[in-house]
Amino acid sequence: MNQQAENVDRHSVEALNQILGRPFHVLDNGFVRVVDYMGSDAAIVQAARVSYGKGTKKVREDRELIRYLLRHSHSSPFEMCDIKLHIRVPMDCWRQWIRHRTASVNEYSTRYSIAIAEAQTTRFDAWRLQSQDNRQGSEDFLDAETGQTFTQQEADLQNLARSVYNQRIETGIAREQARKDLPLSTYTEAYWKINLRNLLHFLELRMDAHAQIEIRSYAEIIGRDIVARWCPLTWEAFQDYQMGSLTFSRTEQEILKALCQNDQSGAVKAADDAGWLKQKDGALRFHLERSEFEAKLKKMDLPVPWTDSK
Amino acid sequence: MNQQAENVDRHSVEALNQILGRPFHVLDNGFVRVVDYMGSDAAIVQAARVSYGKGTKKVREDRELIRYLLRHSHSSPFEMCDIKLHIRVPMDCWRQWIRHRTASVNEYSTRYSIAIAEAQTTRFDAWRLQSQDNRQGSEDFLDAETGQTFTQQEADLQNLARSVYNQRIETGIAREQARKDLPLSTYTEAYWKINLRNLLHFLELRMDAHAQIEIRSYAEIIGRDIVARWCPLTWEAFQDYQMGSLTFSRTEQEILKALCQNDQSGAVKAADDAGWLKQKDGALRFHLERSEFEAKLKKMDLPVPWTDSK
Amino acid sequence: MNQQAENVDRHSVEALNQILGRPFHVLDNGFVRVVDYMGSDAAIVQAARVSYGKGTKKVREDRELIRYLLRHSHSSPFEMCDIKLHIRVPMDCWRQWIRHRTASVNEYSTRYSIAIAEAQTTRFDAWRLQSQDNRQGSEDFLDAETGQTFTQQEADLQNLARSVYNQRIETGIAREQARKDLPLSTYTEAYWKINLRNLLHFLELRMDAHAQIEIRSYAEIIGRDIVARWCPLTWEAFQDYQMGSLTFSRTEQEILKALCQNDQSGAVKAADDAGWLKQKDGALRFHLERSEFEAKLKKMDLPVPWTDSK
Amino acid sequence: MNQQAENVDRHSVEALNQILGRPFHVLDNGFVRVVDYMGSDAAIVQAARVSYGKGTKKVREDRELIRYLLRHSHSSPFEMCDIKLHIRVPMDCWRQWIRHRTASVNEYSTRYSIAIAEAQTTRFDAWRLQSQDNRQGSEDFLDAETGQTFTQQEADLQNLARSVYNQRIETGIAREQARKDLPLSTYTEAYWKINLRNLLHFLELRMDAHAQIEIRSYAEIIGRDIVARWCPLTWEAFQDYQMGSLTFSRTEQEILKALCQNDQSGAVKAADDAGWLKQKDGALRFHLERSEFEAKLKKMDLPVPWTDSK
Repeated sequence: MNQQAENVDRHSVEALNQILGRPFHVLDNGFVRVVDYMGSDAAIVQAARVSYGKGTKKVREDRELIRYLLRHSHSSPFEMCDIKLHIRVPMDCWRQWIRHRTASVNEYSTRYSIAIAEAQTTRFDAWRLQSQDNRQGSEDFLDAETGQTFTQQEADLQNLARSVYNQRIETGIAREQARKDLPLSTYTEAYWKINLRNLLHFLELRMDAHAQIEIRSYAEIIGRDIVARWCPLTWEAFQDYQMGSLTFSRTEQEILKALCQNDQSGAVKAADDAGWLKQKDGALRFHLERSEFEAKLKKMDLPVPWTDSK
Repeated sequence: MNQQAENVDRHSVEALNQILGRPFHVLDNGFVRVVDYMGSDAAIVQAARVSYGKGTKKVREDRELIRYLLRHSHSSPFEMCDIKLHIRVPMDCWRQWIRHRTASVNEYSTRYSIAIAEAQTTRFDAWRLQSQDNRQGSEDFLDAETGQTFTQQEADLQNLARSVYNQRIETGIAREQARKDLPLSTYTEAYWKINLRNLLHFLELRMDAHAQIEIRSYAEIIGRDIVARWCPLTWEAFQDYQMGSLTFSRTEQEILKALCQNDQSGAVKAADDAGWLKQKDGALRFHLERSEFEAKLKKMDLPVPWTDSK
Repeated sequence: MNQQAENVDRHSVEALNQILGRPFHVLDNGFVRVVDYMGSDAAIVQAARVSYGKGTKKVREDRELIRYLLRHSHSSPFEMCDIKLHIRVPMDCWRQWIRHRTASVNEYSTRYSIAIAEAQTTRFDAWRLQSQDNRQGSEDFLDAETGQTFTQQEADLQNLARSVYNQRIETGIAREQARKDLPLSTYTEAYWKINLRNLLHFLELRMDAHAQIEIRSYAEIIGRDIVARWCPLTWEAFQDYQMGSLTFSRTEQEILKALCQNDQSGAVKAADDAGWLKQKDGALRFHLERSEFEAKLKKMDLPVPWTDSK
Repeated sequence: MNQQAENVDRHSVEALNQILGRPFHVLDNGFVRVVDYMGSDAAIVQAARVSYGKGTKKVREDRELIRYLLRHSHSSPFEMCDIKLHIRVPMDCWRQWIRHRTASVNEYSTRYSIAIAEAQTTRFDAWRLQSQDNRQGSEDFLDAETGQTFTQQEADLQNLARSVYNQRIETGIAREQARKDLPLSTYTEAYWKINLRNLLHFLELRMDAHAQIEIRSYAEIIGRDIVARWCPLTWEAFQDYQMGSLTFSRTEQEILKALCQNDQSGAVKAADDAGWLKQKDGALRFHLERSEFEAKLKKMDLPVPWTDSK
């Protein structure tokens, strides 16, 4: 491969260097900033080519190669890139974040140090109502007047919790015990280092419309403001093939096929055969998989072939 | 949750118990057999329900819940199941297998013990020809007569390599060094333990049509003969939503949409806009993404909207 | 290896079966209980023997083999055992627990369900004082009278936080947002599955005297009441070689050597050469490594060769 | 923490930059070279300090902090450093290497490309004899004359294997099948990226005297020529506390204690109580743990308190 003669430089990305250390603000008091990184789009290509060896060296351009890798889940070359972020995030949000086990983490310790003073607060117009058809989601907002009451109550509770914490510390109670009743909204900080393969997986889950708005706010900044600068070809491919893609099950393929053949009744029959069109009191009963398929059709700007369920 | 009162038994699956320890033969001298396991479809449901808590306890039946989890990549409950296999496999195949880093492995050691005597052999009619349009694949077979020659040559080489190994051992050369020129076709054995989440990922990659035939032979037995008995609901969902599913990129959705609207020329235009329909000498030039989309249409039994490239 | 003829049964451990599902109570409202498991001491031996092959089959008895493996950090056979626990633990403690990335986890979700009502409370005589010479530890207790005040204050704060949570829920605020100011002391539940290798690492860190008392309470029950029943030979070896072992650096070996040669002044000289015996105002200055070595000598019931620093 | 104002630069290490891309030769035809890296001793300190927060900021100097972290297995800060190596290594050695699951790997693919032409050869004076008291080791060398014969035989076998491979390729047999009888001594290449925590673990196992000489040759170069330049403080601490340390079990502590008290007979009694001094035919029987302890005494240049077993 004559790799020994190949010139080697550390991969450096000008667009990312320009924002190194700069905090992107998130929520009322959080941030994300890039501390260090390794690799680039070029490093992904370089790693893929060691696999392919001489055989395919000139066959594909870099962009095509990256798009091919991402499209086919050839994910190991994306592990050659790493990014290290410094983040500030409410503990409640961090509880979801830390579930991603593939990152390296050093978190601010409230055993060693006094807890960070800030807690995440909620504006009077930002209290979200429980979603009715999605058990884990939220939709719409509380009216402003009631919101005002809850915002005041939140401030009072946070102040009391902080005052209790401070009294414990001043009396000499161990930091590791004093912190026990701090609210989940208390901010924490961490260095979080992850490779690009695992970061894309994080983004796919956390930029999703079903992710909680708090962690989604962080994910969107990491994706759009950081990854887009760092590995622009990968970011483009990620949007085309992962974030923007739609996957169809066997049943859904049957329906799609009928639609492509301009066969409406065939489409309805396929859905009915799958048990999707059961009625109750003259209306379609709720069917989760059907409603998911309807959402996909809507994304593609296509009409539902049966009388819509909503 | 009153979980404490809940009856607890180790998850046991009768259909799997019946084949415990029985070797399924693979290739000329390999095998796979189940040594132990933990969990079942019921364990997946149990784990998912601790997440959902009381809230949704009675809402979905087990089958629907498993299908929902798999469809939406809620993969953590599938980690609650583990299986431990004893396998016998050529080292060349094992080189691919071991790339899956999420398993626990104890392999037969040729530092401690004399290498296994068998090497994988090739029948005269099983020599595969290099695929022309897929750099890493194979297609068709060598003619029987030439095959006969190669099979004889293979036997001679394997015999010589073994004889050299034996002479080294008899002369007192260290086992760790004596083995150095054994052919990659030499069989090895291992205990291989993996959780169901990671096993499904292994199967998705290794049952794929692009996987090398040797490892695919093992994967198909693990899937169809073992997982299908162990967790039948998961296996069914895996086929409907993972193995049998098709994913469409943004561009592909544009084309599909036109087809569903009975708009052939719109479909062709979308493909052309994406640069898929460039011509050379009056014929379509090869375009990888277009050919992948054509393969998807073929799977769905739909015609290609442009003049087919092959 | 004629493994095919070997009898195969799922590894079952009577002593562990007897406590399956039984909750061991921890703290005021927590518990640990075994839900399922896989493997046993015998499974570890079985896995190790596939590595050693015929070569050493009869050489060592099971106990000796397990002790050998553990002593030499041959850790892969211990991965062949898995245990699945159902735990109930305060979120503050869970924050430390979840840092162990090698487990499979399904946690009770407060996005889906109403948060568990209980929070960890502190008795009037259980308020710990900040350790003076260890930044992250605690030592001694607050006097009972002041303790009484803090216990009452803790109850008031927890009640208020719960009442705020309940009001939010009743007003229709989304569960995912309503929970944001719950105290870290709120209990959560999880299924937690881990293999024995990683569990021993967890126990080594969390049964350590420097671990916070809350997580140490869980670790000790998992070790002494569960692992000791499940894999008694491994547990014994773990105590002899891991928990009960002492490791000496190069400098410490120099000092030990002089002591073994009955050469007190040589021991003092070695410590001095390493910069351990610097004085200030006629007394030894604090030196972390020296104080760690003194603690090891104390564990071995040996006197400190220099005038003790405390 | 006012981290936002802190100056941020990518960690760069001059001593490592100077050897970037330069191959260090190993064995007859292998190499290791650094392709890229992230972090430095300073990054470890930076990550540790985010945990400790303000509380201990000025307390310890960098060197002391790194030594403290390594001595106490506070390993997460070492994960903040990553290194990417390009290596060329015989497949037999790679089989051991790849067992380390915590690295990212892209290996040269012999499905895509023609296998690398070189195979590892053995000089006439480098044939090792099987160790008699260590089942997996080697010791001493074969005499030169017999060695000559084996070296010639090795060349003949490798040439034949290569010629068979070439004939298969020329006849059009698929590369993925043609390679099946290549000897394990055939070289492969890979990009191998790993964080410093896991690299130190790799080095601890593979620089050990019991590691096979081939992989040990690579490990020593990675340690002494690369890590020593990259993170000199960590490398020094690693040698003092990990490579150069000795660990003593409970029984061994009993014996050591007696020795420190100048009580020879007490030392012998402790060993005897542990069953270490059983005799057969008037001589000490082999006892593995005793012989391991004797080796530790030898390392410390101390005499064995009982009549030596060898």
